[in-house]
Amino acid sequence: MDTLNVELGNRSYPILIDAGLIGRADVLERHVPARDVLIVSNTRVAPLYLAALAAGLGAGRRLVEVILPDGEAHKTLANVARVLDVLVANRFGRDCSLVALGGGVVGDLAGFAAACYQRGVAFVQVPTTLLAQVDAAVGGKTGVNHPGGKNLIGAFHQPAAVLSDIATLATLPPRERSAGFAEVIKYGLICDAEFFAWLEAHLPQLLSGDPAALVHAVRRSCEIKAGVVGRDEREQGERALLNLGHTFGHALESATGYREWLHGEAVAAGLVMAAEMSRACGLLSSADAERVRSLVARAGLPTCIPGVTPGAALEHMRIDKKIKGGRIRLVLLRGIGAACLTADYPEGALRDTLQACCGPERGLT
Amino acid sequence: MDTLNVELGNRSYPILIDAGLIGRADVLERHVPARDVLIVSNTRVAPLYLAALAAGLGAGRRLVEVILPDGEAHKTLANVARVLDVLVANRFGRDCSLVALGGGVVGDLAGFAAACYQRGVAFVQVPTTLLAQVDAAVGGKTGVNHPGGKNLIGAFHQPAAVLSDIATLATLPPRERSAGFAEVIKYGLICDAEFFAWLEAHLPQLLSGDPAALVHAVRRSCEIKAGVVGRDEREQGERALLNLGHTFGHALESATGYREWLHGEAVAAGLVMAAEMSRACGLLSSADAERVRSLVARAGLPTCIPGVTPGAALEHMRIDKKIKGGRIRLVLLRGIGAACLTADYPEGALRDTLQACCGPERGLT
Repeated sequence: MDTLNVELGNRSYPILIDAGLIGRADVLERHVPARDVLIVSNTRVAPLYLAALAAGLGAGRRLVEVILPDGEAHKTLANVARVLDVLVANRFGRDCSLVALGGGVVGDLAGFAAACYQRGVAFVQVPTTLLAQVDAAVGGKTGVNHPGGKNLIGAFHQPAAVLSDIATLATLPPRERSAGFAEVIKYGLICDAEFFAWLEAHLPQLLSGDPAALVHAVRRSCEIKAGVVGRDEREQGERALLNLGHTFGHALESATGYREWLHGEAVAAGLVMAAEMSRACGLLSSADAERVRSLVARAGLPTCIPGVTPGAALEHMRIDKKIKGGRIRLVLLRGIGAACLTADYPEGALRDTLQACCGPERGLT
Repeated sequence: MDTLNVELGNRSYPILIDAGLIGRADVLERHVPARDVLIVSNTRVAPLYLAALAAGLGAGRRLVEVILPDGEAHKTLANVARVLDVLVANRFGRDCSLVALGGGVVGDLAGFAAACYQRGVAFVQVPTTLLAQVDAAVGGKTGVNHPGGKNLIGAFHQPAAVLSDIATLATLPPRERSAGFAEVIKYGLICDAEFFAWLEAHLPQLLSGDPAALVHAVRRSCEIKAGVVGRDEREQGERALLNLGHTFGHALESATGYREWLHGEAVAAGLVMAAEMSRACGLLSSADAERVRSLVARAGLPTCIPGVTPGAALEHMRIDKKIKGGRIRLVLLRGIGAACLTADYPEGALRDTLQACCGPERGLT
């Protein structure tokens, strides 16, 4: 079993990576010590893994479940209220624990409910998608969407543990698995050119679900993220680099109402847009921008999001959290493996990038 | 101008106590540096002080207001959502600031909205009730009520500053001012027998609104609370003592639907119940329990809450946040000025105390 640690003083926690973790009674007993446990899952994941998790947690506990509808459109404050209602109705105390069994939506929502209930109770992430295993479940960012923008409501609340059962990736639909690669590619782009090259070389194995390749991709992604979060938990600096592709991606998701595109797909298009913008600003070579576009496309991910106009994208970028003093701050690339945060770019470059990458006419090709 | 500091490392903040702070441009410029400011207030306080605050904040800012209905019944997640909607609708960024102008309800709710918006933005407390000045505005506990219990949803989120304008106490209805004394009396009971004796001696001046007496009471209360919070921000230990009277009080409020009684009134009855329970456990002398009851009564505060049965009170105590391992932990008194937290008491003592202090028959006397 691979174990990494996110180093955050008295809020440090382990990330466990292995096949079959969900049913491991010894692991669950150690990392979910609470007697009262609320499992939050969704209608797609619960039928696959809830029984195994409940069996692993064992008798002698009080287990309650909240099963949400599947999808980003349900990551709402109303569903947080629903989870809180269940916690109150069952008289769960401060010593209870929430367990998030599912992808990023379930983890973000359950984590935020845990952050708010009685001003903070424990929660454990059991991510069942590639995207959640490499990104959403690690780092303590929790929250829900607002109709006006993604993740606008939330809290920093670190999990007590992350249990990444890579056996779940075998049941992942190909579209979901591809979506997870958007974040994996992102880690290479931000700070590890060698990992990016490894991804270029091993993409076929990753797409076909080769376990050894997947474990390496998950482990290296978590290592990079754990390192960044350990150095900058609250995004005062370096952590902002993890938003590469996300300011564009969030705007695309928000402009399409979170319904048509998976988060990873929007981020993938956002990575291509960030690379294109970096090229337009003279920071990145055309060849490197093309490497980004090519890897994204080979991973089966969109390089643009059809049906979003440049004006709509810009409008949605303006409400994103990265605004400072009225300027949209962007993570751009000085090269593969070298990201930087800046609000110092020509306005024209942003307009040109949106013009080049958005719009129904391009999207329909 | 009196200034205290709450010492919390990089989250330290000042408490300013003076008459006329609300309109002081120099103070507001220093402690509310944001350009985009959302003022949260209520229908009772806004007509009195909003214009002065807006004038003090000055031109060159973007000021938006949310005016809530007055009262504990409106401290709801729905009203937090309303504040968040306004923040999003106005495209406020992470560098905005919320200003809570009002009593504890406004401060708790606005603080929680600030905690959740974009995972945390700045907020400044401008408490206009005695209760908020001595308690709610200091210490970073924010949150809202759930139909199943008080303050069950919330976050720890420290303000950037607390501006306590004691001139606002002059417009406070006598009932509200009395309610504030419940928390003031609490500080003496917890850890300062001398302050308790001072309150016994100076109650007439305090009730008649004598400014010098009020400043002393506010300042000493804030000193005690700031010290406790600085040593134990997250209530791992000592801070729990500040809940003296609150486990009983919250149950009384919750059982009466937050509509009939002010928070301070419920706490006052809770202080009497805690003293009675301490006496029943053999921790407190009958004479000291009587001093508590007598000071509460002289302050114009209830010593019991009519219309709550012992069974209903116990039911509501069980969902309070102080449960650990199924036992209700209580703050009890070993003497005036000496509180202790314990779950080690005879169950019969709790039942007897509720029997003695609750119930319509007693409540109607």
